Amino acid sequence: MEARLTTREEIAEFLVTAFPQTMCQVVEAANGASVVSREISRADLRPGGTVSGPVLMAVADVALYVATLSVIGIVPLTVTTSLNINFLRKPSSEARILGKCRLIKVGKALAVGEVALYSEDGPEMVAHAVGTYSIPPRRQAGEP
Amino acid sequence: MEARLTTREEIAEFLVTAFPQTMCQVVEAANGASVVSREISRADLRPGGTVSGPVLMAVADVALYVATLSVIGIVPLTVTTSLNINFLRKPSSEARILGKCRLIKVGKALAVGEVALYSEDGPEMVAHAVGTYSIPPRRQAGEP
Amino acid sequence: MEARLTTREEIAEFLVTAFPQTMCQVVEAANGASVVSREISRADLRPGGTVSGPVLMAVADVALYVATLSVIGIVPLTVTTSLNINFLRKPSSEARILGKCRLIKVGKALAVGEVALYSEDGPEMVAHAVGTYSIPPRRQAGEP
Amino acid sequence: MEARLTTREEIAEFLVTAFPQTMCQVVEAANGASVVSREISRADLRPGGTVSGPVLMAVADVALYVATLSVIGIVPLTVTTSLNINFLRKPSSEARILGKCRLIKVGKALAVGEVALYSEDGPEMVAHAVGTYSIPPRRQAGEP
Repeated sequence: MEARLTTREEIAEFLVTAFPQTMCQVVEAANGASVVSREISRADLRPGGTVSGPVLMAVADVALYVATLSVIGIVPLTVTTSLNINFLRKPSSEARILGKCRLIKVGKALAVGEVALYSEDGPEMVAHAVGTYSIPPRRQAGEP
Repeated sequence: MEARLTTREEIAEFLVTAFPQTMCQVVEAANGASVVSREISRADLRPGGTVSGPVLMAVADVALYVATLSVIGIVPLTVTTSLNINFLRKPSSEARILGKCRLIKVGKALAVGEVALYSEDGPEMVAHAVGTYSIPPRRQAGEP
Repeated sequence: MEARLTTREEIAEFLVTAFPQTMCQVVEAANGASVVSREISRADLRPGGTVSGPVLMAVADVALYVATLSVIGIVPLTVTTSLNINFLRKPSSEARILGKCRLIKVGKALAVGEVALYSEDGPEMVAHAVGTYSIPPRRQAGEP
Repeated sequence: MEARLTTREEIAEFLVTAFPQTMCQVVEAANGASVVSREISRADLRPGGTVSGPVLMAVADVALYVATLSVIGIVPLTVTTSLNINFLRKPSSEARILGKCRLIKVGKALAVGEVALYSEDGPEMVAHAVGTYSIPPRRQAGEP
């Protein structure tokens, strides 16, 4: 199954089925990189009119998950083991949040990636995250 | 205003007003420590029947905010600048998540704290977070 | 070999042999907790007369390693996979640095712990770290 | 003083004077980006013949400092407030370590940057760090 590429469409469909409550959409997903986007509504804002931290964390987490699945295929039990996020600038309250992820390591047991987060209407990074996903040992034969 | 203590009730009331969509409740808040709890529903689960990472991150973030407000008073524009979280064990899908925070530094511009996260029905930590909140410069007189 | 406890003396002796250049001493090591100390010399200071960041990071790293070995035994190839450190206060230039670690998870493949760092002459934490160590798969028979 | 650019040579000279014990050399420094390199000797290795974690952390810390000084000028009391590092691959024991930093935010009080670490003889990142430097309030006139 890993022998062929997992497409953006397959990952997007899996995400909708497995996480029906997610508000993130898969814009791109290939070769360990991803772009996800998320609509912002009034419920996502915090005092000061800016997007709340947990919304940005959720986008970073999904972007890492999607990038990982683009390499290892649809492995639902792949789970986050750590996430580090720095909030850099006040996101726009009126634009979607984009999370752009690239993996910097895909090992047998762990994938590590970084995510740059933007407001869709601006050029500057609003937050930056680095996270680690644990890949379950699902393959049995012939693994080192 | 800082001269008197900010009570748990005041912080709980502020949280409901300023973040009407939050699902966290303030159980304790005093002297730079806090306990918050959050109900878990089907929408919070991910494949494997466990609580999704972003839910745990949100609880950690609120616990840090509440602990910070317990020291500096109700300062709405206090915002997260960084959060680091490690996911340790699979949380229960049938118990509330508790976040227990204690601040390890409260400076003029930054508060730093750590949060231990538990499923309410178990003794073992399910995740551990460390975060930093930026405190806005609201006081004018006599500040360096 | 794991069946009996690994003592502080064994870990201290291993550290001196395997890391002859380390300046850290093992004060305590048992049951996933450790205390290590490190002398501070002029070479460890940075402008402002305070202990440089990398010295504190090194103490945190060794404290995590020692605490991990206290649980899994002497496994030299156990390596750090991540470390997050927050610098809280200016350490004294005239006192040893103490790192006090407790593990919050010891799994089959990963150990996670937190470290509080102090100047030996003061009560307040000067830095706080959380780190992850990867435990090599060395046991063959009868492991789940 | 900030009005003109701080050159690589000035930063390199400052580093040698202020941190005579540093083993890092400044290869590039301009516009919030830096490259630093560090010789590896036997004393820097750990069991398994790989470069020890604290050596990589120190290179990341210096790369962040140099990149920050390239923007704000020579401000010795600029200090690290946090560092997060992920160790990705075993570095070569026979090549210098390179740290390549770019800042992703330079505010009035904080600079945030990321660092990719390499063995000089290989193409793959051996570690990745994100750190925050606190910039002291040294300017008096016209500051908000």
